[in-house]
Amino acid sequence: MKELKKLYNKIIQRANINLREIKIDTAAYIQNLIPLSQLLKFYAFYGVSPNHPLNFHFRHSNLSGSYFLGKCKVTDSLLYKSDIRGDELKKKGETFQYKEFNIPINKDEGIYIEGSFLAKTLVHNFSHDPETPEMFYVRDTISLPYANIHGSPTNGGFLGPFSTIDLTTIHDCIIGTFSYLQVGEVSHLNIPPGTVWIRSPDEFNFLYRHPTDQLNDYIYYAQGTSPQGRFIDFIEDRKEAFQVVFDKLNLEQPIPVPDSASLDRYAVAKCQTNICENVLVAQRAFLQNAWLGEGSNAQENCYIINSRLEGFNVTAHGAKIIEADLGYNVFVGFNSFLRGRPDGRLTIGNDSIILPHTIIDARKPLNIPEGQIVWGMITSKDDLKVNSLPIEDFQKIESSYSSGNMFYEGDGNSFITAFRDRIHHILEANGAFFDGSKHRGHAQKNQKISFNTIQPYPEGDLEGLYPTIIIRP
Amino acid sequence: MKELKKLYNKIIQRANINLREIKIDTAAYIQNLIPLSQLLKFYAFYGVSPNHPLNFHFRHSNLSGSYFLGKCKVTDSLLYKSDIRGDELKKKGETFQYKEFNIPINKDEGIYIEGSFLAKTLVHNFSHDPETPEMFYVRDTISLPYANIHGSPTNGGFLGPFSTIDLTTIHDCIIGTFSYLQVGEVSHLNIPPGTVWIRSPDEFNFLYRHPTDQLNDYIYYAQGTSPQGRFIDFIEDRKEAFQVVFDKLNLEQPIPVPDSASLDRYAVAKCQTNICENVLVAQRAFLQNAWLGEGSNAQENCYIINSRLEGFNVTAHGAKIIEADLGYNVFVGFNSFLRGRPDGRLTIGNDSIILPHTIIDARKPLNIPEGQIVWGMITSKDDLKVNSLPIEDFQKIESSYSSGNMFYEGDGNSFITAFRDRIHHILEANGAFFDGSKHRGHAQKNQKISFNTIQPYPEGDLEGLYPTIIIRP
Repeated sequence: MKELKKLYNKIIQRANINLREIKIDTAAYIQNLIPLSQLLKFYAFYGVSPNHPLNFHFRHSNLSGSYFLGKCKVTDSLLYKSDIRGDELKKKGETFQYKEFNIPINKDEGIYIEGSFLAKTLVHNFSHDPETPEMFYVRDTISLPYANIHGSPTNGGFLGPFSTIDLTTIHDCIIGTFSYLQVGEVSHLNIPPGTVWIRSPDEFNFLYRHPTDQLNDYIYYAQGTSPQGRFIDFIEDRKEAFQVVFDKLNLEQPIPVPDSASLDRYAVAKCQTNICENVLVAQRAFLQNAWLGEGSNAQENCYIINSRLEGFNVTAHGAKIIEADLGYNVFVGFNSFLRGRPDGRLTIGNDSIILPHTIIDARKPLNIPEGQIVWGMITSKDDLKVNSLPIEDFQKIESSYSSGNMFYEGDGNSFITAFRDRIHHILEANGAFFDGSKHRGHAQKNQKISFNTIQPYPEGDLEGLYPTIIIRP
Repeated sequence: MKELKKLYNKIIQRANINLREIKIDTAAYIQNLIPLSQLLKFYAFYGVSPNHPLNFHFRHSNLSGSYFLGKCKVTDSLLYKSDIRGDELKKKGETFQYKEFNIPINKDEGIYIEGSFLAKTLVHNFSHDPETPEMFYVRDTISLPYANIHGSPTNGGFLGPFSTIDLTTIHDCIIGTFSYLQVGEVSHLNIPPGTVWIRSPDEFNFLYRHPTDQLNDYIYYAQGTSPQGRFIDFIEDRKEAFQVVFDKLNLEQPIPVPDSASLDRYAVAKCQTNICENVLVAQRAFLQNAWLGEGSNAQENCYIINSRLEGFNVTAHGAKIIEADLGYNVFVGFNSFLRGRPDGRLTIGNDSIILPHTIIDARKPLNIPEGQIVWGMITSKDDLKVNSLPIEDFQKIESSYSSGNMFYEGDGNSFITAFRDRIHHILEANGAFFDGSKHRGHAQKNQKISFNTIQPYPEGDLEGLYPTIIIRP
């Protein structure tokens, strides 16, 4: 493992150099997190399908357990059980609209990961940065389990566990545990844990901070430890089910799937799960006694257990929904944790928006009415009052609003419009509106994918490194 | 499968053009042999190991179920369950000795397969043709199940089932079913089935022809049919055991293997099998109640059942040994079929040479003494008398010899010397003489190989074709 160790040290040094102003020694944080021997244990996978133009280029990297679709170049990096989806990138000839700019795309966009260590991280979608529209890069970055790098070019980042950067460009920043940033472009920031920050410069600015004590019960991470808390326990308890689907080369579909829907072969779908038309279930999604109504999607690393989602529901990357009934068009953002109880279910009315990184965990029945926008930490009806608003009231905010730990500046309507546009786009991209011929999305395009497995050198100086692998159409 | 069909037709046309003087329509022979839909069912594999310098390049081909090691380039070809081993090629800087020529090797040799359809064919070893020492090519060639292309560049060949070309260069030739050629260089020949022809120009010329009626019971193949006979039945009966080893991603070693030996994870090793020091068992070898003494090797597609091999035994590609006891240093050549009976075992004494494509199938006990050279079709003691000689008698042949269907010209000693040199080389390459530090061969180098799986496009115009795949160190 000589070369693998050298690479690991090089990545740490590069991250430290990038983050030198914030003064962090990333080694102290990650050294016990994933022993290098662990990087030899798992196959990586890449998908081959006519619906996903191919361009894989893996060099001098370890890709243990990772999953690739589309166009990705990985160099000098360690990607441990990461999901890298380059199946939704911009294409040559398209125009990327960014505010008043219509930017012509000169070549197919690619995901470029270099000098980075991503653990159980989801990298997805296209780069939303207008400055490098053909290049979605992740460089000199370390990210920890269940982080999401979503359309967010990143240079010199340290992303804590369950953190998300979304439509954000990062230069030399630390993103704290369970923090969510959707803020355009930032540099040299050290974002504390549990921050939810959504900003569109000159339009709106939403800021929430989870109460530290409460958050620590769900997820806590400090130098020299492993991430711990209810999120970790919850995932660990369900880990074994994934082993079965990753161990087998050929797998029968465990439940019926309509012709217009798709259930990824690396998802877990347990008993009593029902998949309706135009549903997408992505890899590493976990479904157990789940009803997914028409046009719903269950994205990577999400868990839906003993729950019913009526239709056109988005369950974003890493979201968890347990003992809950969700109406139509309910959006549940990244890494949200929504837990009802068998004797106290959680219900959410139609058209509600659960902002990313929301925790709803009441021991008593909780009803969220139709058309509500919800954020933050909610363990009771009182919390709900503080951390939600009817969407139509939110739209009326003229210049600022504050409630509990939440601060909002700007025009409420543009915030809601931005979210609604995005939800519509997500449903569309995932194939929710497929009518049998038009509006095909991932649900229809991902039905048949060949997955090829890749492994590293099994011994010698290069042990743990993958050979150079180039896959083209 | 549009592109796949086009490719299939193109390969047939190219083969027909090359073979136009012999007037064969290869399509008539192969059209029902392997339905194109079959080409979508099986993963291909390539090995990654520090002991096998990598250079794979697969383009516009189907590789269904095939196995690759080392340096291989495949273009515009269909390789169905073939074994392509580029792990024993010449290396840059070496010298290739051919008679009085010392040929410097200017770049690493590669296997280049282009415009060919190889079914269950073994392609192995380095090119023995001094004219293209850096290029072992197989072009515009069709080969049928259990053919071997061994160190034999081939341009425009039609190789029947169970045929072997070995240290031979072929231009526009038909090699009949179960024929074996080791003849240097030939062109525009139509070799009838059951021919065993071993020639070293100006040195010796060995020719045997199997009696057609008897051979047809073992293997028969005609236009429009599938190959049939005892060989096929024998293999079909044991097919299922391979399914298990190919279906699983991770497999425990089924029997103990000494540190100095290796059992390929795509071999079948059934109960009561014993593997001694320095033994090599290659992929697709089948062992059942087999004793493999020190330094023995069991090569691809061989079967060893209820048999004991004392040590330093070579069981070449495709050879079958059933209910037999073999002494030390017994060589069993390509595709030989050696069958004793539980109540009438076959015994072969030390240092005997069973020439390639020999059939020994006696219903009564048969003892082949020490130091015997054996060829042809043997179903009784009488046959054995006709089709064998003590090696020391063979060495005394001065200019010619004939017995039954066998004709020999030349000096007997050089024939024996050539074979003994080769047997020694095979044992050496396979690691039979490993002493714990020196003389490492395949048995030691193949212990740890990562196998990566590859599959074709699952649908669309490209259905059945593999993407372009390039693997480098």
